[in-house]
Amino acid sequence: MQLTSLLNDSPCHILLIVLDGLGGFADAQFDTELEQAATPNLDQLAAEGIVGLTQPTGPGITAGSGPGHLALFGYDPTEYELGRGVLSATGVGFDLAPGDIAARGNLCLLDADGIVTDRRAGRIADDAASALVDVLNDHVRVDGAEVMFKHIASHRVLIVLRGEGLDHRVADLDPQRTGVPPRDPEPLDPAAERTADVLRKVDAAIRDALADQDGADALLLRGFDTHHDLPSFADRYKLRAATVAIYPMYRGVAKLCGMDTLPRPAGLSEQVAAIREHWNDYDYFFLHHKKTDEAGHDGKRDDKVAAIEALDAVIPDIVALEPDVIAVTGDHSSPTQLSGHSWHPVPTLLWGPHVGRDAATSFGERACAAGLLGQRPTQELMPIMLASAGKLEKYGA
Amino acid sequence: MQLTSLLNDSPCHILLIVLDGLGGFADAQFDTELEQAATPNLDQLAAEGIVGLTQPTGPGITAGSGPGHLALFGYDPTEYELGRGVLSATGVGFDLAPGDIAARGNLCLLDADGIVTDRRAGRIADDAASALVDVLNDHVRVDGAEVMFKHIASHRVLIVLRGEGLDHRVADLDPQRTGVPPRDPEPLDPAAERTADVLRKVDAAIRDALADQDGADALLLRGFDTHHDLPSFADRYKLRAATVAIYPMYRGVAKLCGMDTLPRPAGLSEQVAAIREHWNDYDYFFLHHKKTDEAGHDGKRDDKVAAIEALDAVIPDIVALEPDVIAVTGDHSSPTQLSGHSWHPVPTLLWGPHVGRDAATSFGERACAAGLLGQRPTQELMPIMLASAGKLEKYGA
Repeated sequence: MQLTSLLNDSPCHILLIVLDGLGGFADAQFDTELEQAATPNLDQLAAEGIVGLTQPTGPGITAGSGPGHLALFGYDPTEYELGRGVLSATGVGFDLAPGDIAARGNLCLLDADGIVTDRRAGRIADDAASALVDVLNDHVRVDGAEVMFKHIASHRVLIVLRGEGLDHRVADLDPQRTGVPPRDPEPLDPAAERTADVLRKVDAAIRDALADQDGADALLLRGFDTHHDLPSFADRYKLRAATVAIYPMYRGVAKLCGMDTLPRPAGLSEQVAAIREHWNDYDYFFLHHKKTDEAGHDGKRDDKVAAIEALDAVIPDIVALEPDVIAVTGDHSSPTQLSGHSWHPVPTLLWGPHVGRDAATSFGERACAAGLLGQRPTQELMPIMLASAGKLEKYGA
Repeated sequence: MQLTSLLNDSPCHILLIVLDGLGGFADAQFDTELEQAATPNLDQLAAEGIVGLTQPTGPGITAGSGPGHLALFGYDPTEYELGRGVLSATGVGFDLAPGDIAARGNLCLLDADGIVTDRRAGRIADDAASALVDVLNDHVRVDGAEVMFKHIASHRVLIVLRGEGLDHRVADLDPQRTGVPPRDPEPLDPAAERTADVLRKVDAAIRDALADQDGADALLLRGFDTHHDLPSFADRYKLRAATVAIYPMYRGVAKLCGMDTLPRPAGLSEQVAAIREHWNDYDYFFLHHKKTDEAGHDGKRDDKVAAIEALDAVIPDIVALEPDVIAVTGDHSSPTQLSGHSWHPVPTLLWGPHVGRDAATSFGERACAAGLLGQRPTQELMPIMLASAGKLEKYGA
C-alpha cells in the first residue's frame, strides 16, 4: 500500500516546529532541559493534544541533523543517506548538478614533512579563510574536472568537482587526527579510480596554490557525495511546502525535499511573521529553531532552557493562525550532560482539532512516556500529521 | 521463525469481540464515546487484564473494514488486499471460483446524453432494485464471459464475470461523481485488455436491458477483484474457528479465512447463545458488533455510546463460559466527530487467566495509552492471544 495512493487534493495547514536537539535525559542532579523550562504555552498544547517519544534513526542510534530532519519529513533516513559534502553544499546554497561530486574540506596546517599539525588551521578567522578560498578558486586547475570552492565558516570549505564520469565513492583524505599526513585518495569502487586520480591532482594543486599564502597549507577532504534526487513534498504528499529556517543547512535539507525557502528571517518572531505572511500560499511550513542544539553542544543548560522558553513564547502567535496540525519536536536529542547529540528519544507533541487528547498536561520527556502518541520511529509522524489534516483517504473497502 | 512451527494441538477457547469502529478521540467538548459509556463489565475486564492501542494498517492510515478484520485475524492487511468486488461477493454469500472477476455496481440514472445524474438511482427501494437485477440476469449475455448479478441492498449490486483468461486489473467505470459519463473500461495491465473489451459489451448490454425499465439506466462498476485463496485458520493457527457475525460482509471475511459461519443470529444475546451452544465445537469464536460503527458513520454520539453499553451488558454471559482469552477491540476507529472511519488507534483489551494485569481500571482510549499491551500493529494481537491460550511452544532451546 502506497501512501501516495491515499492522498487527496484538499488544501490544509500543517506546521512542523523543530527545536533542534530538543531531547535530553534526567539524572540524579537534573530534570531534562525541557522539563526544567517554564513552557506554559507548550504545556497547554500538550494538555489539548497528544504526546509521545520519537526515534529518528532507531533505538540507540544517535542521529545527525540530516537523517533527523529527513525522518521528520517522513523519508526513511537510512534509504536517503546524505553525505557531508551534499549537506555542506545545500547548506551554503550551492546547487549541485547531477554528476557533481561534493566534499567538506578543512583548511589545515602541515609541517615541513607534510604531517598534519592542526586540522583546523588554528580555527582561522572568516576573512582570512575567505581570502584563501578566493586564491583556490583562482589557481586550482586540473585536467578532467572543473573544481569549485566555497567558504562555509572559519576553516570549513565546500569543494565541488564537476566533469564527465566522476564517482563519489572515494575514501576521506582527512586522517581525522594530527601527527600523520593526509591520506592518499583511495577509490572505494573500481568506478571511482579516475576520480581518485583527479583528486590526487586537486590535492597537489591546492598545496601549490597555498604554498605562498599565510594561514593554511592544505585542505583535508571528507564526506564525498553526489547530487541526490529526493522525491519532493509535492510528489510524495501533494503538499505545497515552505521553510522559514534560518540556518543554511536546514534550508538546504528542506530544499532537497522540494520545499520553497522563504526569505531568510532574522529570528523567531520574524520566522512566525513569514509564516503568517505566506499562510495561504502553502499547506505545510517547517520552522527550525537552532539555539537549543547550540546550547546542547556547548553543555550550557541555562542557555538550552532559555532557548526552549523563547520558542514557547511564540506559540500563541502560531496557534492564532488556526492550523489543522501543529507538531512540536526535535530532530534528535542533545543533552547538555553530553555536550552533543544523543540517542535518547525525542519528546514530541501533536495538536489540532482532530488529533485527540491524552492525559498529559505538560510537555516533557517523562510526560511523553505515557502519551497517546506512544513511542515510535520519527518517520511515522508524517502520515499521522497528514491524516490529522484530512489529507488521507481510507485504505481498503 | 514461523508461527506455525510453534503451534501445538491443544484445544482452547479464544474469543475475539469486535465492536466495529470502536475507537474515537477526545476533544475540547467530549471524552471518547468509549470513555463516556457506562461499561462496568468491560471496566472489570480491563482491571483484571491488560489494555493497549492497536493500529490496523499503520500510523495515520484509516482502515476499511476488510483490512481491519484481516489484521485482527493476524493476516497482513497489505499483503491480502481484498477489493470491494470480493468483499461484496463474500458479503452476499456468493462463492467466487478461481478466475472469477467480481465488482460492485451502483444502479444509477443517466440523462439523454449518457451523463450520470444520480450515482445511486435515487437510493432506489430494495424490491424495485431486486426486480431490475432479475432483468439483468435474464437479459445480459455477452461473448467471452458468463455474467451474473446479485442484489445487495438498495442501489448496490454485485456483478461477477466467469470465463477463461479474464483479468481483474481494470480501472473503475464509476466516475465517483455526477455530471460526467461513466468511464470507458481501461485495462491497468496489458493482460486485462480482453477483459476491458468484455466489460464494454457488458456495459452496453446492461444499458440495453434497462432501457425499457423504470428506476435505473446503468450500473456504475468499481472495485474489480478476483478470488483470493487466503490461508485458513486451521492451517495457520491449528484452530477450529467460527463466527457469529450477523452482517454478510463480516461473515464473508471470516469465511475467506476458513471460519465456519454459524446460523445468522438475530442480535447480541443470540450471538452469545450461539457461542454457548457451540462452545465445545470450536477453539476460536469471532463475535462482531456492528452498531458502534453505524452510529459513528451517522455522527450519533448517544447511539454509539448506547451500542457500546449494549455490548457491555452481555460480557458477564461471555465470561461465564470461562474462555482462555477474551480480546475486546475494534477493526478501526469511527469517531462521531468525523462521521466516518479514522486513523486513531483502537482501544484494545485482553483478558484471561494467563494474560496478566496492568494498572488500568477502566476501558478507554486514555487508559489504554498507559497499558501493558502497549501501542502496536493490530496484526500482533493474534500471536499474543494464541500464546495466552497455551497454543504456542517455546522458540529455541
